[in-house]
Formats: sequence, C-alpha cells, structure tokens
Amino acid sequence: QPSGNQAPDVGAGQKRAAVCFACHNADGISKIPGTPHLAGQERSYLENALRAYRDGQTRQNPTMNPMAKPLSDRDIVNIAAYYSSLARSGQGQK
Amino acid sequence: QPSGNQAPDVGAGQKRAAVCFACHNADGISKIPGTPHLAGQERSYLENALRAYRDGQTRQNPTMNPMAKPLSDRDIVNIAAYYSSLARSGQGQK
Repeated sequence: QPSGNQAPDVGAGQKRAAVCFACHNADGISKIPGTPHLAGQERSYLENALRAYRDGQTRQNPTMNPMAKPLSDRDIVNIAAYYSSLARSGQGQK
Repeated sequence: QPSGNQAPDVGAGQKRAAVCFACHNADGISKIPGTPHLAGQERSYLENALRAYRDGQTRQNPTMNPMAKPLSDRDIVNIAAYYSSLARSGQGQK
C-alpha cells in the first residue's frame, strides 16, 4: 500500500525520475524491448516494484537494483505517482 | 527476447490467460491495488516477467509464482502476445 501519510508530489517525482527517462522515457512509453511501459501503471504496483528492486530480494534485475538502491521512501512514492499520473497512451499528464 | 520461431497465437493466449482475468481482467486494466495493468504492455517484458515468475528465482511473488508454474513456453509467448495486443486504454484489441 502507498507508504506514509504525506500526499505524493508528482512534480518532485518527475524531477527525481529523470534518471529513468533513458529507458522508460518521460512519457512512460519505453522504446527498448524488454523494458516495460510505465505510463498510467497502477500506482501501488509501481511503489511495490521500486521497493522490491531497492531491497534486491524478491526482484533481482541487474539494471533496476542499482537504479533503485539510492531512492528514499519519498522518492519511491513520488516517482510512482508521477508515472501512474501519465496518460496510458503516452501523451503526458492525464 | 521472444522465444522460439513460431509466431505467437493471440487467440490461444486469450484462452490460456483466462486464469489471469480474475486480477488483470480480460482488457488488461486491473481493478486491484498492487496488481499491474497489462493492456498494451511491452511484449518481451511480459514474456520475461512470466518466465521469471515461473522460475521463481529473480521474481518472487506468492500469487504469481504458482500461477506461472504450470505455463509452457508456448503459453508464455501466447499470453504475453495477447495482453500486449490490447489497447493500452483498456478497450480490447488494438
């Protein structure tokens, strides 16, 4: 479930997600086979995935574990909010 | 990368995916927090995820490991093709 009580900050999530754009793109539609689209993805799923990549136990991936390692709980909530706020079609904010 | 040389069979994938509909829905837009939308997701990502859940090493999830366990390589290719063929908006076939 979404962590903490502070509301997610989509703007901060967009800034913090800049490192993700290389593969997932700012619009959340990936151009790389094997890399998932994140646009409009279910928010708590994205949070859970980022936490699992950060912890490196239940989800092991050579790219995502190091990417998620430095993320704070707030970063995770904000990044998940950012990508889930995007239109599933890939045209930016819903 | 997509496995084998036979073209994926979306129709067979739709049939085999019936067990997935309970959480992911036939249109690939999930109604359950924490359960990802699959509609129009990137095909080889879905294949890789299903193989990882089936193998239970790099992706451990109490729901998805047993769900993926009985899937054959063909099932995985077809199910991934089915869900990735769906409109990202959730209105069925692209």
